Amino acid sequence: MNARNPLNIGAAARAMSNFGFSRLRVVNPFEVAFQEARSAVGAAEYLARAEQYATVAEAVADCALVVGTTAVRHRDLRHVLKPLEEGGALIRERMQSGRRYSENVALLFGSEKFGLSNEDFSHCHWLIRIRTDDEHISMNLGQAVAVCLYEVARSDADEVKTQHQAAQHVEDGANATAEEVERITQMLFEALQLSGYVKPRTEGSTEEKVRRLIRRLSLQSKDAVAWQGMLHRMVLKLRRNAKK
Amino acid sequence: MNARNPLNIGAAARAMSNFGFSRLRVVNPFEVAFQEARSAVGAAEYLARAEQYATVAEAVADCALVVGTTAVRHRDLRHVLKPLEEGGALIRERMQSGRRYSENVALLFGSEKFGLSNEDFSHCHWLIRIRTDDEHISMNLGQAVAVCLYEVARSDADEVKTQHQAAQHVEDGANATAEEVERITQMLFEALQLSGYVKPRTEGSTEEKVRRLIRRLSLQSKDAVAWQGMLHRMVLKLRRNAKK
Repeated sequence: MNARNPLNIGAAARAMSNFGFSRLRVVNPFEVAFQEARSAVGAAEYLARAEQYATVAEAVADCALVVGTTAVRHRDLRHVLKPLEEGGALIRERMQSGRRYSENVALLFGSEKFGLSNEDFSHCHWLIRIRTDDEHISMNLGQAVAVCLYEVARSDADEVKTQHQAAQHVEDGANATAEEVERITQMLFEALQLSGYVKPRTEGSTEEKVRRLIRRLSLQSKDAVAWQGMLHRMVLKLRRNAKK
Repeated sequence: MNARNPLNIGAAARAMSNFGFSRLRVVNPFEVAFQEARSAVGAAEYLARAEQYATVAEAVADCALVVGTTAVRHRDLRHVLKPLEEGGALIRERMQSGRRYSENVALLFGSEKFGLSNEDFSHCHWLIRIRTDDEHISMNLGQAVAVCLYEVARSDADEVKTQHQAAQHVEDGANATAEEVERITQMLFEALQLSGYVKPRTEGSTEEKVRRLIRRLSLQSKDAVAWQGMLHRMVLKLRRNAKK
């Protein structure tokens, strides 16, 4: 809507490409800004396909749901205003394939300076707002677009967790076994003895302390070998020096 | 990290103000870009308070959790990589007041062109990725910052569930700060050098490996002193022997 800054149009297009949205419609842009954005390096693909409209009504004509965006909470809104977390989930649901009817959804952004007008709002079914700090409610247009599209494309945290749990397990790795942990404990304790850290009088309690310290590290199995390798080398060096 | 474009530094600062984050730390910025960003209209408040650091280690020294960001899925990562939906929830939980220990969390972004290096990654506990379209994974820096901060500041019904799970992650004590962890890393690395474990040809990658190993231990603050004491003694002994 009336975007003035070519960088912002380009930024909106870039965020769309990042989150897999493809149809950018520009309403009544400042001609110069639009042409400049179109010819920006790297913007080619998405902006070249951007459609230009003279009015909001024409731009959203084939959409079954039109959602406006606003930074303001209390501008005498006659629309239902939902936080993005909630509105984004509703949009996601409406766009989901697998529904009986696939629907076009329009997400409407205003100009950098004035946002959407009441006339623009009147084309919307409801509005969303990104919840921001009370003192700094005005977001950069390109950033606002990115945040909204991220939320619409977002998966439930639960969903993501399920998807990634298998992979995480492999990466996170199993914890080291008690046997591995104890071997590491013994190597560290020998290194400490050879270094003069362990005093004969308190040998028993020092060993316990070292054992507790190691247990608190939640060592992973895949790392246990590396730790043994490092400690082994230190112990060998300290032993050799002790013999000199 | 090495941001080149003053507009991007400004955009990051603006997104921070929108979502209520206040401490921008800039590592090794191109001086010109940084000064330009600082003097940009409207950027004053947040950028004026931005702190400048020469290294990642210094920038994250007082942070108990350091999370890196990456666009790439399979760059031979040796870190646990979480989707933003999941990682954001964990960060949120760690930052929440009302926890027994309030912790500083660092969210690390790379340069526009190259992202974070492996050396940068080695300072991180884990990484997050914004899930994007396979064909368009590279986001604009300012937009990526906005999306990440939105997610961290986000709240929803899942949160209760996620919190519960995250709580199992959190140990009974506060985690060691990055400064403590890095000091331990350096001491262990010196002990390994003196023991002949570190080969000159692979010194850099060995240091990164050691840094990653230590980060995976989830060291507690109350234990950090004990570990430093033990390593200090070993290093002293090994140094003394090396002189003989």
